[in-house]
Amino acid sequence: MDVLAIGNALVDVLAMVSDEELAALGIVKDSYELVDAQTADRLYQAMPPAVEISGGAAANTAVGVASLGGAAGYLGMVRDDQLGAVFTHDLRATGVRFETAAATSGPPTGRALTFITPDGHRTFRTFLGAATRLGPDDVDEEAVAAADVTYLEGYLWDPPSAKEAFRKAMAVAHGAGRRVALTLSDPVCVTNWGGEFAELLEQGKVDILFANELELLTLFPGTLHDAIEHVRGVCQVAAVTRSEQGSIIVAGAETHEVPAAPAEVVDTTGAGDLYAAGFLYSLTRGDDLVRCGELGSLCAAEVISHVGARPQRSLAELVSAAG
Amino acid sequence: MDVLAIGNALVDVLAMVSDEELAALGIVKDSYELVDAQTADRLYQAMPPAVEISGGAAANTAVGVASLGGAAGYLGMVRDDQLGAVFTHDLRATGVRFETAAATSGPPTGRALTFITPDGHRTFRTFLGAATRLGPDDVDEEAVAAADVTYLEGYLWDPPSAKEAFRKAMAVAHGAGRRVALTLSDPVCVTNWGGEFAELLEQGKVDILFANELELLTLFPGTLHDAIEHVRGVCQVAAVTRSEQGSIIVAGAETHEVPAAPAEVVDTTGAGDLYAAGFLYSLTRGDDLVRCGELGSLCAAEVISHVGARPQRSLAELVSAAG
Repeated sequence: MDVLAIGNALVDVLAMVSDEELAALGIVKDSYELVDAQTADRLYQAMPPAVEISGGAAANTAVGVASLGGAAGYLGMVRDDQLGAVFTHDLRATGVRFETAAATSGPPTGRALTFITPDGHRTFRTFLGAATRLGPDDVDEEAVAAADVTYLEGYLWDPPSAKEAFRKAMAVAHGAGRRVALTLSDPVCVTNWGGEFAELLEQGKVDILFANELELLTLFPGTLHDAIEHVRGVCQVAAVTRSEQGSIIVAGAETHEVPAAPAEVVDTTGAGDLYAAGFLYSLTRGDDLVRCGELGSLCAAEVISHVGARPQRSLAELVSAAG
Repeated sequence: MDVLAIGNALVDVLAMVSDEELAALGIVKDSYELVDAQTADRLYQAMPPAVEISGGAAANTAVGVASLGGAAGYLGMVRDDQLGAVFTHDLRATGVRFETAAATSGPPTGRALTFITPDGHRTFRTFLGAATRLGPDDVDEEAVAAADVTYLEGYLWDPPSAKEAFRKAMAVAHGAGRRVALTLSDPVCVTNWGGEFAELLEQGKVDILFANELELLTLFPGTLHDAIEHVRGVCQVAAVTRSEQGSIIVAGAETHEVPAAPAEVVDTTGAGDLYAAGFLYSLTRGDDLVRCGELGSLCAAEVISHVGARPQRSLAELVSAAG
């Protein structure tokens, strides 16, 4: 296994809205918030016609790795309901190994209400649902020990039992001499859990860090330069994504700036997830860091050029066409 | 109410496949078949990652009418499950009046597995599910009597009790001095039920007929000219759609050829449904038949330019922009 991703299993409910419609719902653009079932239902009733597409940040990354031709697995919790079946189908259909048993009781499969504005920005209201039921017992130790990289999303820090699963997966991975990757997921996530993320980094529990500029600056306030220097000292590799400005990759004394790949932005949902997919696929193949970043940029460009956070075409073919 | 549409309530499960993948599934391209739950499940397991979008031919037409600014209603049956909630949400969110009570037992909400090939053609395998439970008791007589046009899809002829609902709606509409529109839906549908459709036409039970060329020639075999002359004698208005060749509209002694609107074809799902939406919206406003056809062409062009059978932008704005 190249990459085993662990995350909150969600179905994305995507709708295009104007900035005015979003404001009328009382929602601040570009924000991310967890909501309870009742609020999710209320917002859904007020939402324009939507499209359902399997999502979940780490799951999107697993799909990206599989689409590139890598061996990918996923751990995450759905309910045994229709949306859970959709999530499971879409993941397995891409070739991702997904064996976590669906919950047979409790809340329904989680969903991310995603409001896409004309500029391609997305605003989330997430009902975690069954994803909150993921716990340490669901961590397949053999799978983690067999994966070159175990990739964890910061969002997992939200449900308390998933946090325990997260910690267990880290320990198992390192016990087996494998690498642990972490994405900071979202500035709000860092605001809530940054202290613990920083602690993980200081303790050497994260080998590879993914963050966008805003997430990194939320974790290590100050200048971007200082934040990058800080992160350089606490993990082996860090990739900091900067939207159309590309990414900065640091590893020991190395620093690389990699440009973004050209894209006509329709919906930025999944950009970071697919950057991580390209990067990790390349890394597990032993490529140099510039190549890792280039592959990340290429995969991100594909996913932002259409609605939905998973690739619509074979990334392996895309890479092959790009040379 | 301008248009009350009655049809099989379905969620579309859309996936892009190559011609080779479709052949490997043993499915003949461009075909339409009803399948049972077991077959639907087997095909779904073999299907690539998909997107869920509310569909149902007549429901798509109702959405189109509402998107144009018309008053539209829908009668159709879902189950009280997650996909039923998705269908209900998406319909109501466009402003379509939809009050049919969801089934609380029996099969789940129906779905149409839709395989889209690179040329934009679509191949359907439909599991009707709860849609088979629509019956005469679900026909809201007041709503039918209040609608300028009651629009029925030929697909309704498949579930036996829906056929009875169909016949009742026709009788109620005509009893109230209203117009009945019928779409032939699909060549396979015409092969199965053409005798009964022809009988309805001969008996004067259909005022407005929608058919594509192949459906019409399945109903009245021979030359297109002869088929059109036949249909001219058995309904007030007939619109025969011919893909990129536009449409032919006949009414009494009138014959009009209306060109297709330019479009880059991504997915032809919903082309006929949205043509009917534009046509009927225009007709209920008292426009001449050429204008009806032009509006139909414009709406069809919007829906084939993206994945999914419902408009992604306001059709009222589209029409206003087109002048």
